[in-house]
Order: sequence, then C-alpha cells, then structure tokens
Amino acid sequence: MKRNLLVDASRTAADIDALAAITEPDRPYTRRAFTPLFLEGRRYLEDRFRSAGLETRIDGSGNLIGRRAGTEPGRGTLMLGSHSDTVPEGGRFDGIAGVVAALEVARTIADRGITLSHDLEIVDFLAEEVSIFGVSCIGSRGMAGVMPPEWLGRQAGDLSLEEGLVMVGGDPSVSAARTDIRAFLELHIEQGPVLEEARLDIGVVTAIAGITRIEVIVSGRADHAGTTPMTGRLDALSAAARLVLAIERLGKELAATPGHFAATVGEFEIEPNAANVVPSRVRMLLDVRAELREDLDCFHALLAKAIEEVKRETGAAIAAPKVLSDNPATPMHSLAINALEAACHATGASHRRMASGAGHDAAFMARICPAGMVFIPCAGGRSHAPKEWADNADITLGAAVLLDAILRLDDELKETEDGTHTD
Amino acid sequence: MKRNLLVDASRTAADIDALAAITEPDRPYTRRAFTPLFLEGRRYLEDRFRSAGLETRIDGSGNLIGRRAGTEPGRGTLMLGSHSDTVPEGGRFDGIAGVVAALEVARTIADRGITLSHDLEIVDFLAEEVSIFGVSCIGSRGMAGVMPPEWLGRQAGDLSLEEGLVMVGGDPSVSAARTDIRAFLELHIEQGPVLEEARLDIGVVTAIAGITRIEVIVSGRADHAGTTPMTGRLDALSAAARLVLAIERLGKELAATPGHFAATVGEFEIEPNAANVVPSRVRMLLDVRAELREDLDCFHALLAKAIEEVKRETGAAIAAPKVLSDNPATPMHSLAINALEAACHATGASHRRMASGAGHDAAFMARICPAGMVFIPCAGGRSHAPKEWADNADITLGAAVLLDAILRLDDELKETEDGTHTD
Repeated sequence: MKRNLLVDASRTAADIDALAAITEPDRPYTRRAFTPLFLEGRRYLEDRFRSAGLETRIDGSGNLIGRRAGTEPGRGTLMLGSHSDTVPEGGRFDGIAGVVAALEVARTIADRGITLSHDLEIVDFLAEEVSIFGVSCIGSRGMAGVMPPEWLGRQAGDLSLEEGLVMVGGDPSVSAARTDIRAFLELHIEQGPVLEEARLDIGVVTAIAGITRIEVIVSGRADHAGTTPMTGRLDALSAAARLVLAIERLGKELAATPGHFAATVGEFEIEPNAANVVPSRVRMLLDVRAELREDLDCFHALLAKAIEEVKRETGAAIAAPKVLSDNPATPMHSLAINALEAACHATGASHRRMASGAGHDAAFMARICPAGMVFIPCAGGRSHAPKEWADNADITLGAAVLLDAILRLDDELKETEDGTHTD
Repeated sequence: MKRNLLVDASRTAADIDALAAITEPDRPYTRRAFTPLFLEGRRYLEDRFRSAGLETRIDGSGNLIGRRAGTEPGRGTLMLGSHSDTVPEGGRFDGIAGVVAALEVARTIADRGITLSHDLEIVDFLAEEVSIFGVSCIGSRGMAGVMPPEWLGRQAGDLSLEEGLVMVGGDPSVSAARTDIRAFLELHIEQGPVLEEARLDIGVVTAIAGITRIEVIVSGRADHAGTTPMTGRLDALSAAARLVLAIERLGKELAATPGHFAATVGEFEIEPNAANVVPSRVRMLLDVRAELREDLDCFHALLAKAIEEVKRETGAAIAAPKVLSDNPATPMHSLAINALEAACHATGASHRRMASGAGHDAAFMARICPAGMVFIPCAGGRSHAPKEWADNADITLGAAVLLDAILRLDDELKETEDGTHTD
C-alpha cells in the first residue's frame, strides 16, 4: 500500500544509516552511553535537530533536547523521543528508530509550517540501556525526578556517574525534573514477533508490563554419583527440572488469559557442578512480566503450590521464593492511547492494542505526564543483536502516526486546559 | 555380636587415629599425595610395616610395599592394600581403612606365626585420588604397567609428575609393572548406603562398574524474556529439564534390573544465563555407571529415544550425545570372590554380593592378576568429606575376612599351581 504521508522516508532512512555507521567497527552495532562514539552520535543528532529549526540543549541529566516554541507561551510541552545508546553488539533500531521518528515529526512540522499551541520537544534520553554504571534509564529517571541521588557515586572503572554526566554535557547539580510536560509519546521497535506475525503496522501500547525478579533455591544432598543408588538420592537438579517445567506451564496458562504475561527462568546454576557428584543445590532466577497485578498475584500463589508439589514428590528442600525486585506495570494514559489509535485510523495504519513486555523510558515519563507508546514491527522479534531489523517504511509510517497524534493532543489538551481555565 | 577374631581391634583403631592426626590442621582430613604431610603419613606406615616384620621398599611408581617372604620361594606374591592419600577435606577411612586392614593381616600373620607358601605384600598405592597432577591411580596404573608414559610430563605448578615420583621415593626410570602377583585383595569403605541400610557387615564386590561420561548439548533460541510470547519460544532450559527427568527415569528403570546402574547429570550450564533472556543453550554432562555392558547399551538406545521425544515436543535442537570417556566395567575374579565369601562364612560376617559404583586401585590390579574387594559399611554412605565414618569393629572384621581369604587363596593357588606343574 502506497500512502501519501507528510513525513519523508528518505530522511528517516538517511538518519538510521548515519547513526548505524557510528559504531565500534569490530562489533556493530555498539554505541554505548558515556563513550566517545556515543558523543559522536549525539553530535550528529544535535546537528540534525538544529537543521530542523530546533533549539538544542542538554539538561541536567544529560538528555539531548531539541525545542520548538509553541504559539501560545505557557501552555507547556509536548515531548517525543527515545534513546540513541545501544547495548554491546546491539542493533540499528532499538531506541534509535524512536529518536529518528521524533526528529522527522519536528522536521515535517517545520517544513510544512504547521503550528502547535504547545511547545514541542524532541528528546534523546541518556543511557536507557544498562550502561557501564550498571543501571538503566538514567536520563528519563532524571527527567521524572526519581533517580536515586546515591547513583551519582556509582563507578565504572575510574569514572563516577557524576563525572559521566558532566562528560556528556549534563550537570549533576541541576535537577532535570520537569513539571511542564503535558504529554509524552515514544516510538520503539516491538522487540517481539507479534506485529510481524499478524502483519500489522502499529502496536498501540496499553501498558509497560511490570518486572518481578524471583529467586528460588532448591537444596538436595551431594552424593557420590557412582555409589549412591538411584532410589536413595536427593538430586537438586531433578527437583529443579520439575520446577522449571511447572513454571513454564504456569506462564503459558496465565499468558492465555487477557493481559500480557511471561515467566522465564533466565538464570540457573547448579552446585557442585562436578561430573561425579549428585547436584546438591540449584539457584534459579525467574523473570516475570505482568501487565495485570492479579496475574502476578496468581503466579505467586500457583508457584507456591508447584513448589509444595515438587517438595512432596522429590523430598528436596525448596526455600520460599525470594522477590529480589518488583516493579509494577505502568499503564499508558488513555489520552495518549486514544490519540494514537485515532492517528492510526487517520493514516490508514493497521494496528492493535498490546502491552510492552520490555521496559522503556516512557515508563518513567508516565510518572510526570500522560504517556503513550507505539510499537513498529521488527524482523522475527529480534532485538539487542546485530540482526535486529525494522523496515524504513514502518518507521516512516510510525512517524506519521506520531505526527498525527501530536496534532490531536495539541488540540485536545488545549481544549481541556481552556476548559479548566474558564471553569 | 562378640567375635573371637585373631586380628586386634585396638591396633587398627590406633593406626586410623594416628593417620587422621596427620592432616592439614585447618582442613581435616587432608593428606594429598606429593605433599610433606603425605610423606609424614608414609613414614608412619613404613614404621608400622617394619614393626610387623615386613621388609619395606618403594617401587618405581612410588608405591610403598611391605614384604614377608613365603615358605616356598618362586610361588609368587599375594598382595593386600589400598591407598593412604586423601582428597582435599576428605575423610579418615577412604583408602586408609584398606591399608590399615592389610597391615593388621600382616601383623596377625607375624604374631601368630602363620606361614604362607606365597610371598605376602602389603601395599600403599601412590595417589589413588585425583592428585595435583589431575589424574588418579598413579601407583596401581604403574604396577599394572598401564600408566601412559606422557603423564610423567604432567605439571603441577613447577613440579612434574616425574619429579613428584622421585620426591616420594619412586624412580620413573624403573618400571613398577609386575608379573609375579597371584592374587590381590582390597578392603574399602562402601561409599554408599547399601550395607548400612541392610545392616550387613561385608559387601563382596562382583565388579567395579564402568564409568561413561556423555555430553549433551541442547540448543534453543535466545529471546527477550519480556517481549517474546510464551508460545513462540525455543527455551533450551525447558527442553533440557525434560531431558534431565527422562535420564533420571531411565536410570531408575535400569537400576531396578540386575547389575549396578546409575545415571547422573552432574554438570549443567545454561547460556546466556541472563535474567531477561530466554536460555539459548544448555550443556549437560552425564555420569553413567554400569556393571553390565548391556545396561549401558540399553541406556544409549533409550537416551537417543528420549532426545527424539524432547526434540519433537519442544522444537529444540539436541546434538547426538558425545561420549567423552568410556571405561568398561572390571569384573572381580571368581577365585577372589569365592575366597572372600568363604571367609565371610568362616568369620560369621553377614554379607552380600554387590558392585562398586566408584573406581578403585583393584580395577587396575585386575589387569594383571585375580583381584577381589570387600566393602565395609560407612555412615550414611558419606565419603570424601570430614563426616565420613566407618566403625572400627567393621574395619577389624573386614581385616579378619581378608586374613581368612588370604589363607584360603594361599592354599588354593598352591594346589592349582602344583596341579599345573604336575600335569
């Protein structure tokens, strides 16, 4: 289908290619935050931002921001963006597609002489990926005012995060927290196979799933693998294997009900891990993603039951599961969801609502303003790998959806604001 | 039950205690081969050997040997023994009980003025446990003439095995291989729970099980744990868990048929072993112990079937199992088994036939002469740990069985030899 969009596909393609070329040459695509290559990518973006008529700055938390003033000062800001940093040996699109799409929206607004009542800001958040300092979403946490101050002391070799912020042009002494943002939208590749398999253009994100990490320790008894009869053993690996299958079964059951759900045993280590010794201990780390709190509660209850069953069956000791971290799901705002759905209709983009299983800067922005996300398809659901791929046509269509949505939000927010003002 | 045995329980207890005191003080019981403590233990033993009227020497492979000449020169040698080295943080009895029991037999023979037609030798084999050179059974391999010559070049830090042999009084330029040994008997703790649970005094070993090590690699696909739906995954850990349970099931089935059998997944590692990534690869190492070759063949066939089933169920790729090492079972000689059973009857020791799941020096001695083993009970089947325990009454009764068996073998072998000579 050939669409007549205001946005320009050749420009998004050129930006994606230009940023892809700024990588560690030996391991594409690597442009980690706080590295010279990252700063080189930033220089490219800042130059593009300026060419789009945006006034650029770096805020206290190291976010690169391009600003176009609205026609009515004091209305507040509509913000679009994502991040330009990558994981080691990452891809060309994760984060980058969102920054480039936001930039293309700003360019189109400038080119076409479109006016917005609100100020428009395009943002490249600092260090969304887990950075050399071991933490993620540094920029968006800062903008939401929720970065723990003690993080400034985190070290990566000789460098502290405080020094890292200065290095990228930020200022740790200045809060990046904002109160003027009226709405935030982020485009991102799906990082899953759902849109591609359903041949849909756009996923309108309903919520960013919560992430709960649960540690389970299974204890058996180390016995000589040669001399201990098969029937007299307390094999921790055998008990843990039963639990792995139970967790997968529970995950599938809850995934089949409404609301995104996934449960994964991502870390699994046995002791003593010696050829001739019956395993005495297994440590498992579960990653549980739930859009709905009740699914997570249900999982906790069913996991406890499964553990009791495995204990009964095997005689192994299994400690009560330990929740190491528990970040609740972040719903996207209905204002943003509705504007994005209307924009899909207007641009002819086929779409569905869906949850995000991965975390994003939008989860922090949702703490300070109505936030929304659009997903675009990516090949095979691959991400965080050089094979990661998104078609430029999908990025461009996504930019068109963002543009349409931002115009709607400008109008709708203005009406609400004026309504409030006159009441 | 109070038995009237020729052997002396107070002497075996004193020897066990004396050797237990020769340990790294901070981590009892540690007396590894090629260490000063090992040589101190050897000096104690050599002294005891001499006090028992034995003529001592160290052979080319570093075995400590005590010899008592028989009444009929040229008849050859009856040998008894085991090893005095320990694993790090090992026990007081593994190997040691066998050396002490052999010594007590020699002492009793001397005290009581018992005469043997054959020469009698008591041996403390060098480095039965995996030593600092990364290999086991150095002394018994040498005596059987099967130690690979290139092993002399093995290094432990600055020390070569060649130098290590010299250090313990051996001589790498002199072959320790023997052709004069007419029978070999070894007493050892069971290292399993069978005798204790059945309240039996003695296990007469029918065979030392073969040890086969099999590597299995399961390959799935690394996906994002948050964004990849539960139904679209190729989770290598889930597939591997199915295989672990299948292997345990097969092991139990084959263990329930005649002949010792055990299958253990002792090593198990997943990749990438990251909290938020679906496991892409699992490496498992199986330890399979079989007394009967047909059980092992059967296991290979059933494992292949189980792998096909897991592949079909999960879609994971599983490479054909790779046999990393395959040491066949070593049957004990009927001459030795019969003599030991008759000795059990004569001494009133309750007993059963059983296979050894662990390897022993007797497996190498079986290559050059009729060999046999007796097991004595040990607490909870524990071994290679400070908790390892064998009652002194059981060690002493075992020594009495050895003594009775060696007298029978002396007679029986003489008859056979004379029969052969006169034919």
